[in-house]
Amino acid sequence: MGSINKTPAMVDLSHHINAKSKARHPSPLKDIIKFMGVDGMISFAGGLPHSSLFPLEQAKFDCLNPGASLSGDRQVGAENPDILSITLGRAQTPGDLDLTPFLQYGSGAGNAQLIQLAKELTEKVHAPPCDYECLLHPGNTNAWAKVVELLCEDDDFVIVEEYTYPSAQALWIPLGVKAVPVPADAEGILAKDLRAIMQNWDQKERGSRRPRVLYLVSVGSNPTGLTISTQRRREIYDICVEFDIIIVEDDPYYFLQFPGYLTPKEPEFRPKPTKQFLESLVPTFLSMDTQGRVIRLESFSKTIFPGLRMGYFVANPAFTERLLRATEVETQDPAGLSQALVLSLLRRWGIDGYLTWLQNLQFQYRERRDWLLDAFHAQFVVLPAAKSPVPHAQGLVVCVKGRENDELRPVFSFVDPGAGMFVWCKFYFDGVQRFAEIESSATSNDPEQMFADDLWKAWASELVLLTPGSYYHAWQGADKMTTEARGADPRTAHFRFSFATPTKQQIDSGVERLFKVVASYWR
Amino acid sequence: MGSINKTPAMVDLSHHINAKSKARHPSPLKDIIKFMGVDGMISFAGGLPHSSLFPLEQAKFDCLNPGASLSGDRQVGAENPDILSITLGRAQTPGDLDLTPFLQYGSGAGNAQLIQLAKELTEKVHAPPCDYECLLHPGNTNAWAKVVELLCEDDDFVIVEEYTYPSAQALWIPLGVKAVPVPADAEGILAKDLRAIMQNWDQKERGSRRPRVLYLVSVGSNPTGLTISTQRRREIYDICVEFDIIIVEDDPYYFLQFPGYLTPKEPEFRPKPTKQFLESLVPTFLSMDTQGRVIRLESFSKTIFPGLRMGYFVANPAFTERLLRATEVETQDPAGLSQALVLSLLRRWGIDGYLTWLQNLQFQYRERRDWLLDAFHAQFVVLPAAKSPVPHAQGLVVCVKGRENDELRPVFSFVDPGAGMFVWCKFYFDGVQRFAEIESSATSNDPEQMFADDLWKAWASELVLLTPGSYYHAWQGADKMTTEARGADPRTAHFRFSFATPTKQQIDSGVERLFKVVASYWR
Repeated sequence: MGSINKTPAMVDLSHHINAKSKARHPSPLKDIIKFMGVDGMISFAGGLPHSSLFPLEQAKFDCLNPGASLSGDRQVGAENPDILSITLGRAQTPGDLDLTPFLQYGSGAGNAQLIQLAKELTEKVHAPPCDYECLLHPGNTNAWAKVVELLCEDDDFVIVEEYTYPSAQALWIPLGVKAVPVPADAEGILAKDLRAIMQNWDQKERGSRRPRVLYLVSVGSNPTGLTISTQRRREIYDICVEFDIIIVEDDPYYFLQFPGYLTPKEPEFRPKPTKQFLESLVPTFLSMDTQGRVIRLESFSKTIFPGLRMGYFVANPAFTERLLRATEVETQDPAGLSQALVLSLLRRWGIDGYLTWLQNLQFQYRERRDWLLDAFHAQFVVLPAAKSPVPHAQGLVVCVKGRENDELRPVFSFVDPGAGMFVWCKFYFDGVQRFAEIESSATSNDPEQMFADDLWKAWASELVLLTPGSYYHAWQGADKMTTEARGADPRTAHFRFSFATPTKQQIDSGVERLFKVVASYWR
Repeated sequence: MGSINKTPAMVDLSHHINAKSKARHPSPLKDIIKFMGVDGMISFAGGLPHSSLFPLEQAKFDCLNPGASLSGDRQVGAENPDILSITLGRAQTPGDLDLTPFLQYGSGAGNAQLIQLAKELTEKVHAPPCDYECLLHPGNTNAWAKVVELLCEDDDFVIVEEYTYPSAQALWIPLGVKAVPVPADAEGILAKDLRAIMQNWDQKERGSRRPRVLYLVSVGSNPTGLTISTQRRREIYDICVEFDIIIVEDDPYYFLQFPGYLTPKEPEFRPKPTKQFLESLVPTFLSMDTQGRVIRLESFSKTIFPGLRMGYFVANPAFTERLLRATEVETQDPAGLSQALVLSLLRRWGIDGYLTWLQNLQFQYRERRDWLLDAFHAQFVVLPAAKSPVPHAQGLVVCVKGRENDELRPVFSFVDPGAGMFVWCKFYFDGVQRFAEIESSATSNDPEQMFADDLWKAWASELVLLTPGSYYHAWQGADKMTTEARGADPRTAHFRFSFATPTKQQIDSGVERLFKVVASYWR
């Protein structure tokens, strides 16, 4: 009986909005818009170009069906029986959707039907236990920029994973903002470490107030490939409630979660029922957010294509209202053709169809992950960490056999990524002669980095490229850049593999080339 | 003999780059890109999704030819014989252009071929006498936001036209930035006033350093419709050199310049040769910029369509380099479908074809301006300012005849706009009984604004909407909002007409409704 109060625990979080964002005013022009809708009104008030003077009459998109075959090293543009044609015409022509409003200036929030679809998808996938709004944005890069502008004051600290996405940091480094990195295990950042950081925060020593923002790529993180477990999420959320932290959940890889390497695999893609698919995904922070303290950044870049430059915020209305004010004067809504394509495609697919498409992608990225791990197994000896010679390693340890005897020498460890596109490898330099020379020569204050650079160059000479782990170090200031100053494990360094782009054959050859260099150093 | 040194006068302007922008670093990920191009390289370094997994196989756009008939109140989507079909396929399919790179992440600068086209267009139209670069941006709204971020420190002053674009101000008001408005006559802002402001700047009194940025919509300005004359531009440029000011030339209406209302008109659109068309346009600040101190914001919003959310910067390489760093972490390049459409359309049209299209638009917007001015003449008595009863009026004065005698009562004055979409009207309240009542009752500290609000509401009741001039007042702080505090002419207020959107019939009826209200107050 009566209405269900969905949000008993919503709290006022407006004190998180920074001074500049508070000072934004709505554009006065928006006041007039409601009068424009009055029947018979003649408006000299609009400032829009005349839509009959746009030189685009029709757009037609040949898309794929959700269950289209994407098998193996598919060539794009190859004959595909699974084509779904979408036509967007102007007012007078027939078509799936009227193109004209997408060519004209839009409201800052984005197309209303698309917002509605975003809400339906949000309910279906996350069912947030708090009030929220959806607001389109032109890609997660811009969404994060707007969130920093909303929440951070100059010289604040932001809590991040120990290894984090460099462009996200590059944005706030010029503001004098610094990272507070939280170490992680295979289940994600350590709740107890987060708690300790908050509890022991010394404002005087740090020169800034206790952090109020936690930035996480919590599924298939870039670079670590880690996905935070359900239990760990609950612990983290509770700490955020206790210490009044806003969680920014930047989650482009959420739908690219896949089963572990050893899980049996279907020979070809067969979609599960939607409910079963959704239950296989780890619950999001948004789905646990009783208070409205999660700002979720949704992206279509990994699920449709990056060139759309489009995604959406899901957040507390107190935040989306301010984000909309920023959108009006900083970007306006995403590009019209991107909005038109996504809206018409999602309408034709339906939400269930979209979720089928996502399973299709999931299957493909799992296959690519398997190619890489297959190649590791083919070239190296791969041991569970517990059975390896490396104390405290996580996941699996990849070893080479010594040249003279069969003794196993650990080269790197990694956690089998349950999502995304990356395998994050911790290399062990102990017992590597070249590293020992660098270390003892004392020519560098960071022998680990120096040897990692050598290794990277040796790989590049053999025509195989990895991304250096140093790109992903949380930025704690210019005085905390060396392995020692960062407090990282001595005689280790990281590299990131991406398995998203190369073909199976390239992966096999690439790991073979990698092995060749490794063998020459580690044996 | 030997090479021509194009830029003898280029000066070092890097001191204009603000502290935060100076502190930006290039993304380390970009270092790897050059290695990726090496023959035979296998890359595990990229972080891009696999392009075979994008569900768009082909995009087809039906566009108009440059000289297509756009006559009168054209209905969009109506049968048009002037269709140019553009097909963008994936790698394996034939098409005008390969679609794939536009679906994938791009470099921050934008598609290289499109940048090249932007440069060709820049040379042809502006032939800047300084070194410059072109850099794509997602619309002038965002471009201006990036320029403010590049040049302004908190609490700076920015020089603007007395009546200026509100969204441009809304962006910087939260930074504590204030406007320094410069009054204008029919040829644009007054050079002598600009000079006096700079010369008499009292840092102590103002609480901030002398302004270093001049923001101008210098053609068909929004809201004033004014275009700065060639001679005035030269005077302004010289002052900017003398006082080391950066000119931000936000110029979306540049190609919508048209002949005066009284100039004879062809019955239908007939393109002029490109050279003749370009010579008919006022020279830009960029075309006079020997020192590299003009940042030009080019937009396709008014020339192709706003939903593209795309344009480009033309600026000193010292500035574009920093703008690119901001682009990488704040927006990335514009949406791929927008880039693909514009590149393929401009290639098919050719630059001359594009310039023909622009003449076609010019013809249409001139026609619309004429519709509005025709309606003024039909309802009111329109006199040249010099022959009018209003001292110091600019342009034309619009009067009503008194009810009892034939005495002319001035209602508003305006300058015939030579470009853009707007007619900016200065209303005279002297002798209007209702205004006199408000003024003498002393219930408001801004009787002009109070009566302007009444007038606006009376028009809205008669189903005609104008934009209040108050939206466009340069923001000088909360203490300078009334007519008196702003130092504006007493007993006047402004309203803006846009002639871009209504049909001829709507314009006629709208002005009739407007007249009805005016007559009731002014007679």
